[in-house]
Amino acid sequence: MGRDIANPLLLPEIRQMIAEKDEQGLSEIMNELHPASIAEFAEGLTDEETWELLSHGGEHRQALVFPFFSPEKEVELVEGIGREQMSKLLEAMPHDDRVDLLKQCDEGTVDSLLPLIAKADREDIRRLLTFPEHQAGSVMTTDYATLPPDITVQESLNRLRQQASERETIYYVYVVDDERHLIGFISLRDLVLAKPTAIIRDIMTEDIVSVRADQDQEDVARQMARFDFLAIPVVDDQNRIIGIVTHDDVLDVLQEEATEDIARQGGSEPLGRPYLSVSITHLIRSRIVWLCMLAVAATLTVNVLSIFESTLEQVVTLSLFIPLLIGVGGNAGAQSATTIVRALATEEVSSSDLFRVILREARVGFLLGGTLATLAFVVVWLAFDMNMALILSLSLIAICTLGSLVGALMPILANRVGIDPAVVSAPFVTTIVDATGLIVYFLIARLVLGI
Amino acid sequence: MGRDIANPLLLPEIRQMIAEKDEQGLSEIMNELHPASIAEFAEGLTDEETWELLSHGGEHRQALVFPFFSPEKEVELVEGIGREQMSKLLEAMPHDDRVDLLKQCDEGTVDSLLPLIAKADREDIRRLLTFPEHQAGSVMTTDYATLPPDITVQESLNRLRQQASERETIYYVYVVDDERHLIGFISLRDLVLAKPTAIIRDIMTEDIVSVRADQDQEDVARQMARFDFLAIPVVDDQNRIIGIVTHDDVLDVLQEEATEDIARQGGSEPLGRPYLSVSITHLIRSRIVWLCMLAVAATLTVNVLSIFESTLEQVVTLSLFIPLLIGVGGNAGAQSATTIVRALATEEVSSSDLFRVILREARVGFLLGGTLATLAFVVVWLAFDMNMALILSLSLIAICTLGSLVGALMPILANRVGIDPAVVSAPFVTTIVDATGLIVYFLIARLVLGI
Repeated sequence: MGRDIANPLLLPEIRQMIAEKDEQGLSEIMNELHPASIAEFAEGLTDEETWELLSHGGEHRQALVFPFFSPEKEVELVEGIGREQMSKLLEAMPHDDRVDLLKQCDEGTVDSLLPLIAKADREDIRRLLTFPEHQAGSVMTTDYATLPPDITVQESLNRLRQQASERETIYYVYVVDDERHLIGFISLRDLVLAKPTAIIRDIMTEDIVSVRADQDQEDVARQMARFDFLAIPVVDDQNRIIGIVTHDDVLDVLQEEATEDIARQGGSEPLGRPYLSVSITHLIRSRIVWLCMLAVAATLTVNVLSIFESTLEQVVTLSLFIPLLIGVGGNAGAQSATTIVRALATEEVSSSDLFRVILREARVGFLLGGTLATLAFVVVWLAFDMNMALILSLSLIAICTLGSLVGALMPILANRVGIDPAVVSAPFVTTIVDATGLIVYFLIARLVLGI
Repeated sequence: MGRDIANPLLLPEIRQMIAEKDEQGLSEIMNELHPASIAEFAEGLTDEETWELLSHGGEHRQALVFPFFSPEKEVELVEGIGREQMSKLLEAMPHDDRVDLLKQCDEGTVDSLLPLIAKADREDIRRLLTFPEHQAGSVMTTDYATLPPDITVQESLNRLRQQASERETIYYVYVVDDERHLIGFISLRDLVLAKPTAIIRDIMTEDIVSVRADQDQEDVARQMARFDFLAIPVVDDQNRIIGIVTHDDVLDVLQEEATEDIARQGGSEPLGRPYLSVSITHLIRSRIVWLCMLAVAATLTVNVLSIFESTLEQVVTLSLFIPLLIGVGGNAGAQSATTIVRALATEEVSSSDLFRVILREARVGFLLGGTLATLAFVVVWLAFDMNMALILSLSLIAICTLGSLVGALMPILANRVGIDPAVVSAPFVTTIVDATGLIVYFLIARLVLGI
């Protein structure tokens, strides 16, 4: 029967099964539920209970469940059991997931574990650990399936049957020559559909899209999304295959990048871990630098106002509209900045569209400002006087245009010089628009009031 | 050889091939390049040239390329050719992609096309068109593979071979009874690995995760991401399978949802289409309502300042710090709001964590404010006087705490009452913090100055 998610009502039952050492029940759970569901149940169990449950499945089954634990749970479990047992589990785990796990553990744990792992796996782990974060190499896995070009489809299927249990995916199979140069690609679907006597070389696709290990993971993810690939091969500078990135990693990468962009647009550094699992200090560190920089930038507004202090003394009413005006300017800037940052991220807009974008945003800002100005003119005229109405309306038009322009210009310029556009975030744009907007406001006021 | 993307240098060559009617070259391009690459090249061709290129591949091949065109190009191409030819192409297209295409076309085009399409396909299209946007039904496809439970693996593989060319994926196969009730699931990998004489019922997985057609597409995407599925079955209220959602759709959904959240956090409505393809009017419409609402909300600040106008007249210096203070408060609010909105979206935080989150944010805001206050105290003391230093420091602490609290509280409360937390966006939080922050500032000022 179709279940939607791990049912929390089952948790007490599982605890009881563990307490009663119900061999059959536990073994059914371990072997028939989806690994992700088992991992979800286990988040509600103690580490001892979790190991008791896991022990009712083989190493292969345990290795499937493990990557679905939260990073914290994984590390706890690793530290809690014998090194011997853990090394067996690591040998059976998908190659990319076990490296992710070891990256979370402290060096002492890793150093004590590695010698117990079979040589080939150990070397594989060491190699994958060397790739810097955010590069394709750091998300790729090395348990992909390959075939030589000169065998039949029948023989290929036999070979895949032998490889399958150790491979993360056998849906995409890569054809390599004796030196592992990537020369072709064939899907399991094509293999199943092909004549059993056909030769791989004759039916493989030679137009392969591949990536390099040092390419940015976001580029790789976008490429896979564009082609709807299940996996993409990673090659070295000799075009030899060294790994693959799979569809589930792409999801993680794109989610992670969106989270980072959103954090930066809110003026804080990405946390890198789930919100509730980071310390208060970590939260403060992710925000304090930006907040200080923005506060220092905001002292510009104090300077601007100091220049116009005499005007303010003469007409105190002017100060009443300061928060409103800079609020509206900031909002207009934030609207265009977030739109353009996202359009750059999803490649709807590129740096070469600079003038087109500027022109659009200038018109949009002018028209938005014009609409607000019309409303404001009437209201302020009634509540204050004609002069204030005129000052405010003109200022709104100028500030909205300014906000939209700066909001669009900053991300594109940042992109051109190679800075992450998300860093030139909405609050940063806001601060610039605040200071310049105030200057415009007071210049208009002096002009209208003749002071 | 590994190519990275559609090479723009090839475009002139393709144009020449088309001009010279190079049958062999064009047919090679159509049949050997990845459909996504062909579509990318075609974006640089006129509609006539594109059809010339497409005509060198069979209908099946054309149907594979079509979904990779931009929506605009697709619609142009549809309007440009004979209805007869288009109906053939629609019959061959993946079932979800053709519905997406028809949704873009105007009603007249759809009405003239539908009668030309084979009855079964026509009914399928009509049914898929009825599902509201953002529901699982609107992103599912109906060309999935099914098997009965009582046949052998050998027989299953034979049947899949027959179905394969018309199915979007055969990697996940659903086992159904005579009335299409979903009773099991088996992957092509399992089929390839199983003994040819085994019976499907004995080797299928019965623990199936399925979704309902009216479930929110974002929930479905998150579920698939959690289980690392390639596809998920969609069932009706009788547990009969009516479609599947595939991994490529999940990527699109999550990207779309992230884009929408980012737009809303920037205080504008999502555009729904690529930035450069929407009109100025569309851009203005996406922003004006929010901008007006925020401007109206900002009039609160005018009222607050009016109340304290006498205080402002007595000490004009107080007005100098207004933009700085509300800027900092706004930034602190935006930092916590974006963090919490994203944490809610990625399910790191739920509504039940309200008090934990509030407590964290209150501490973070207080400590951030304290840090800024210390810096500000020294600077303002030197530049102005002791009293102003005291007023500003105390205000910074209060406003940062307030900003962090409101920024965290609003999204969680919105989530509780069923409003999209992203709508309670950073600029909205900012406006609330602006008004209350000013009250706090002037109350502190009066207290310190004794006026």
